[in-house]
Amino acid sequence: MTQAASHYRGRRVLVTGGLGFIGSTLARALVAAGAHVTIADAMIPGCGGNPHNIQGIDDRVVVRLVDLRERSLLDDLVRGQDVIFNLAGKISHVDSMRDPDADLDNNCRAHLGLLEACRRVNPDTKVVYAGTRQVYGRPEYLPVDERHLVRPTDVNGINKAAGEAYHIVYNNAHGLRACSLRLTNVYGPRQLIDHSRQGFIGWFVRLAIEDAEIQIYGDGRQVRDFVYVDDAVDAFLLAGADDAANGQVLNVGGSEPIAHRDLVALLIDAAGTGRFTLVDWPSQRKAIDIGSFHADSTLIGQVLGWRPTTPLATGLARMVAFCREHWAHYVTNPGQAARL
Amino acid sequence: MTQAASHYRGRRVLVTGGLGFIGSTLARALVAAGAHVTIADAMIPGCGGNPHNIQGIDDRVVVRLVDLRERSLLDDLVRGQDVIFNLAGKISHVDSMRDPDADLDNNCRAHLGLLEACRRVNPDTKVVYAGTRQVYGRPEYLPVDERHLVRPTDVNGINKAAGEAYHIVYNNAHGLRACSLRLTNVYGPRQLIDHSRQGFIGWFVRLAIEDAEIQIYGDGRQVRDFVYVDDAVDAFLLAGADDAANGQVLNVGGSEPIAHRDLVALLIDAAGTGRFTLVDWPSQRKAIDIGSFHADSTLIGQVLGWRPTTPLATGLARMVAFCREHWAHYVTNPGQAARL
Repeated sequence: MTQAASHYRGRRVLVTGGLGFIGSTLARALVAAGAHVTIADAMIPGCGGNPHNIQGIDDRVVVRLVDLRERSLLDDLVRGQDVIFNLAGKISHVDSMRDPDADLDNNCRAHLGLLEACRRVNPDTKVVYAGTRQVYGRPEYLPVDERHLVRPTDVNGINKAAGEAYHIVYNNAHGLRACSLRLTNVYGPRQLIDHSRQGFIGWFVRLAIEDAEIQIYGDGRQVRDFVYVDDAVDAFLLAGADDAANGQVLNVGGSEPIAHRDLVALLIDAAGTGRFTLVDWPSQRKAIDIGSFHADSTLIGQVLGWRPTTPLATGLARMVAFCREHWAHYVTNPGQAARL
Repeated sequence: MTQAASHYRGRRVLVTGGLGFIGSTLARALVAAGAHVTIADAMIPGCGGNPHNIQGIDDRVVVRLVDLRERSLLDDLVRGQDVIFNLAGKISHVDSMRDPDADLDNNCRAHLGLLEACRRVNPDTKVVYAGTRQVYGRPEYLPVDERHLVRPTDVNGINKAAGEAYHIVYNNAHGLRACSLRLTNVYGPRQLIDHSRQGFIGWFVRLAIEDAEIQIYGDGRQVRDFVYVDDAVDAFLLAGADDAANGQVLNVGGSEPIAHRDLVALLIDAAGTGRFTLVDWPSQRKAIDIGSFHADSTLIGQVLGWRPTTPLATGLARMVAFCREHWAHYVTNPGQAARL
């Protein structure tokens, strides 16, 4: 764990979306660091919130089943919190194109409410927002740094960009201390693997473990970068502890860009099960595809000293082992993956 | 009027925000071009909608007092429209910082609803969105072209950027034909001059006519560019007529960047009344100020052949003359300007 962990001893910390994949992993690290952790989660179906994610720390965190869209609850929620890790939100690109209003409500209105509550009752707090590389859209150059234009290809990317920008405006104009981490593809234990609408890597792990066929769109040569969840959590801990991050937007990318087909081969090797095939792009997917992507994380290295340390093979092996051990808590429809 | 006007003869055209300053001027041009014009306007107090704006064409347009936030009305509104000029929205930076929810509702949710309605009942229509240079925030270089990062300094800029981006995503992913014009400071007859929360130029004109003191923040050397409303309307007509604009975001800037103090001197000269003084920046204003700005409009010249043609002195003289002639229709609190 990062040196920044010592910053959190005895501090009051709120994690929104804290029953989700990254939020719960962050909450676990904060508990280990001696923080007083409150988790807020709306448990919106399909978004990744899972009570099992806090197994083992559930007696050391306060869990509040709060929906950030419920304005009347927010002042009480943020009052007295030294640091707020704001990870709540919807991240499904497909869902956002089907129901753009729900995406807007969760990714824009909810965060405006949270920031307004901070402004009212806790104006000195620090807020770290979970942004996404999705805001860049189809890259014009690789690796993509923070100077790249924000040109999302879907409604989710637009609303995530707006949510991020609110944080920066509240930092600059209202005196809050806030920043955003633009995460690339985060993976690891506790990731949602029950459906395919929240990024492909969780779904691929699921298919590999079920010894099913993994379908890769196109020729599989598109590149992505992947960040192991513990590395991503380190970035959050650093950003929350260091005022050098205030007002900044920082990429959090993986160290090893890798083609889809190579990733899947690595995964199948780690799992010892699964197989893959190349298929044509579904037209709806193709319309919002962005080609190859990997992030330049130089800036966060300079500002916060962060860099990813977990090799992909190691991370995938840990994720597969976790998923197998806790299978029943993460899969509601076992064996059906291959038929979806 | 631009050559593009001939495109509209006999066509069905919807102008949202059509009782406002730019919308009504556009509607007048469309009526003159022989289009069947429907105006939709919510007449939200303080936003600039004014029945007097369509005086003289009110028997040749259909006016619907529709709020785009009213979802149940939108299918009927957009059905059968060949071109939709989507100018409805809130543009007050100050209001957006005081009531960010209202800004979000009007600038994001309303447009998502309109675009979804188009997708359902009129998927081949053309939509031209009124964007704003406000999305650029504080410029890193001048003149600002469309490659400049989008980094708004206020909630209004964030939500206007999201509204624009929805149009581009619906163009790219859903087959609508849509584009955005990023307007700089548009001025001219029918502009709101009743309060100061909607840009400074209307307010300055008001003060000059009332022979009151115009307060310029700082040293008055900040630069802006100004587009006469007829030139801006030409840009809309061109964009609505030409599929070369589809999926594009295009600056619509003025030809003559000018310092605030020089603008005010020109205005006082045009009006023959008024005076100005330099005052310190109010802190809340300073926090969202962007310094100097002027736009590079090269791209719209290349794509659509547009360029501004009205000299600032000419435009200001026309605006002052119009305001004096129609004073009672635009000023609800005459003589009080100097005391606000």
